[in-house]
Amino acid sequence: MAEKEKLTIVMFSGDLDRALAGFIIATTAASMGMDVSIFFTFWGLNVIKKNEGSIKSKGLMRKMLNLINRGGSKRLTLSKFNMLGMGTWMMKKLMKEVNMPSLDELITMAHQMGVKLVACTTTCGVMGLPEDAFRSEVTSMAGAAYFLGEAREAKATLFI
Amino acid sequence: MAEKEKLTIVMFSGDLDRALAGFIIATTAASMGMDVSIFFTFWGLNVIKKNEGSIKSKGLMRKMLNLINRGGSKRLTLSKFNMLGMGTWMMKKLMKEVNMPSLDELITMAHQMGVKLVACTTTCGVMGLPEDAFRSEVTSMAGAAYFLGEAREAKATLFI
Amino acid sequence: MAEKEKLTIVMFSGDLDRALAGFIIATTAASMGMDVSIFFTFWGLNVIKKNEGSIKSKGLMRKMLNLINRGGSKRLTLSKFNMLGMGTWMMKKLMKEVNMPSLDELITMAHQMGVKLVACTTTCGVMGLPEDAFRSEVTSMAGAAYFLGEAREAKATLFI
Repeated sequence: MAEKEKLTIVMFSGDLDRALAGFIIATTAASMGMDVSIFFTFWGLNVIKKNEGSIKSKGLMRKMLNLINRGGSKRLTLSKFNMLGMGTWMMKKLMKEVNMPSLDELITMAHQMGVKLVACTTTCGVMGLPEDAFRSEVTSMAGAAYFLGEAREAKATLFI
Repeated sequence: MAEKEKLTIVMFSGDLDRALAGFIIATTAASMGMDVSIFFTFWGLNVIKKNEGSIKSKGLMRKMLNLINRGGSKRLTLSKFNMLGMGTWMMKKLMKEVNMPSLDELITMAHQMGVKLVACTTTCGVMGLPEDAFRSEVTSMAGAAYFLGEAREAKATLFI
Repeated sequence: MAEKEKLTIVMFSGDLDRALAGFIIATTAASMGMDVSIFFTFWGLNVIKKNEGSIKSKGLMRKMLNLINRGGSKRLTLSKFNMLGMGTWMMKKLMKEVNMPSLDELITMAHQMGVKLVACTTTCGVMGLPEDAFRSEVTSMAGAAYFLGEAREAKATLFI
């Protein structure tokens, strides 16, 4: 049996629009039979944080950071035209009108289609993020070496 | 005859500086004999909108969106140091002084060199963009599957 | 002897967080035996500017640009949560606490591990940046054709 073609994505950004682009590409690739992995790092970790509850981290600075940088797919905003939330609200409404799945639904779909969602251990260490800060669809935690191992075998690698 | 090496670009951003980087890479690759395609999605569609006329879309929200998010290569601004337009104006002047082509000219050059310019149908659907919103150099409209088809054969893929 | 696998990065951005991501990936790849090159263009040139002294460029506009766009690894700020420098200061402190090297140290490490650091001649021409504006770790200056030559042989190419 021929091996599946790979696609690797580094999700660096925590903006709603960039996350949507990443997950639309990832789910489309999976539906075309590709083997997809997304490596979440820096602000990108916000995309896969749980939407509920608070994040328990140690030390005053990390507690503060995780308050102002709360994350969760339902809290993300557009990188442009957020306009105090109005632009983001409008974009979500326009997507619904043309029956596009929400980011939250895309993450679940991606997981069900076998897309690997991996959280960057280094950023988690710096930001004080425990493993239970992330939603259940996240398959594992790993470092940059894991990402490079995937990238060197991939047909395409995207830094989003 | 050997097949040409491919380069694929996803143009997600609608900033002048990122668009310039994309088109300089695209035209250089074409001049080196590579087969280049650029897939415009989200804010990136602003790069290939017509500079003249208004965009006719249906529904109040889409009409509003296409007013504030007008686009067109001559209206784009820098992602940094725009400074109410002064930074963007300065950058264009500096480029002219060293005889660099403008973004508008680069788009025409790219088209003449055979670079494929493709607009993302999904974003066009969400934003209510009709086909005639785009300039004549745009060769077709297609979805993420088209982009992935190109990316899996490409020597390099860039997400800009 | 088998040839080394290549990784190529275009560093377009001059944000501290994006530069850190790029150099962590680059040094990890080098430690895994990959042949890595980083091509600095547009705001990315700020990452490799000297931290000391002033930049000598010709003409009023270029002098002004290089004053407001000073650059240098120690002056870069986060793309998000900079908060007048407080967020950037906090991030540096958090990195130190978990014994992560600073950006400045990562650049030196990358150079010692053989990562090629290349400044884009085209942007240098537009912005009026002389060769001595860059730190000693920068190995050469070249154009987009050089980058594409590396990218077409690379296992992965990232646009950061």
